[in-house]
Amino acid sequence: MSSFDIAVVGGTGPQGKGLAYRWARHGHRVVLGSRSAERAEAAAGEIRERVPDADVRGADNAAAAAGAAVVVLAVPYDGHDELVAELAGALEGKVVISCVNPLGFDKQGPYGLDVERSAAESAAALAPQARVVGAFHHVSAVSLWGQEDYLDHEDVLVCGDDAEAKAVAIELARSVVGRDGVDAGRLRLARQLEPLTAVLISINKRYKTRSGVAISGLPR
Amino acid sequence: MSSFDIAVVGGTGPQGKGLAYRWARHGHRVVLGSRSAERAEAAAGEIRERVPDADVRGADNAAAAAGAAVVVLAVPYDGHDELVAELAGALEGKVVISCVNPLGFDKQGPYGLDVERSAAESAAALAPQARVVGAFHHVSAVSLWGQEDYLDHEDVLVCGDDAEAKAVAIELARSVVGRDGVDAGRLRLARQLEPLTAVLISINKRYKTRSGVAISGLPR
Repeated sequence: MSSFDIAVVGGTGPQGKGLAYRWARHGHRVVLGSRSAERAEAAAGEIRERVPDADVRGADNAAAAAGAAVVVLAVPYDGHDELVAELAGALEGKVVISCVNPLGFDKQGPYGLDVERSAAESAAALAPQARVVGAFHHVSAVSLWGQEDYLDHEDVLVCGDDAEAKAVAIELARSVVGRDGVDAGRLRLARQLEPLTAVLISINKRYKTRSGVAISGLPR
Repeated sequence: MSSFDIAVVGGTGPQGKGLAYRWARHGHRVVLGSRSAERAEAAAGEIRERVPDADVRGADNAAAAAGAAVVVLAVPYDGHDELVAELAGALEGKVVISCVNPLGFDKQGPYGLDVERSAAESAAALAPQARVVGAFHHVSAVSLWGQEDYLDHEDVLVCGDDAEAKAVAIELARSVVGRDGVDAGRLRLARQLEPLTAVLISINKRYKTRSGVAISGLPR
């Protein structure tokens, strides 16, 4: 298994910090990015407390992205496009993994926002030299930050149009769910993957659990 | 377990016939509906060949819907709205289970059509006295028509705003996957469930399999 230099943009949020923790725990070099380098460093410190030999530190988003080979976008959908446009230069030529979920919430619960294109497609349009894939939308932030070795019995669905970039995300899934990610097809299918998170949140409320997605019928 | 009178509108298509076969096999009374009563009866005959004591017959769509307590819409998305509008009278007060997937296919593969509302929401709007739920979108027609007792390790995700109607679909899932369907939340989440089928078809092509969806983290 390769070891990657990973920047997690939005690394102080629950999803970003949880993913960073998983990758740091499995020997990847991780830089948490945040608007505030200080808050990013504080979150990195939390990870080091858990994984003393982790190679993890904090930086502002632009510095984090500039120094990494793989940039993970784990930011809220609100403000996503502006941030990607800002970072476009730093994302050139890099594998960019979008975990962004365009969701809304109202008194009826969660729902997929009626967006013209998925967040992953937006990132690809705003940073056209980046090698964008969509993945890690469905893993529970609480489970990521938990103590279990892996989020067992879940799959990471990976979509994208760049086979090599997809292969990186498929490999990085191993640190999280203990098995390769699933190649779910073209980047445009992010339109389906991203809002599926609304269904999982709805199931979580109904069953008081932390649900995840698995794909049946695959050779394992 | 209750026994239901089920009409499968579009019952000569692979998904409808496969579902009808599963329900007939588990003691439900099934009428296959089709534009042609003759073709519906022929499909019913195929099921009776496999399940000799099955209570299954064919009729035209309107007659099938009129005689049943539960009406399953297993028709192509193309023409769906017109058919539901035609049947609206027969659907009044009934549990209507929409399995319809608004999908497109081009040289890049399958994708979710950019529709204003899900097929299930359309059905609810066009037949406002029907008790519409969405379910059974993701089960493989080939697997349904197979010989295995159940489509193991898969879940049937059920969405809807009518709790009793949802409970019927949740129970009917037992004949198909061997366990209760999963209450996935509000009817509007059909917008997420329906096009997810594009992801599964994409995975099927990539891995040469018949994939399905399962939800991890649920109490079983």
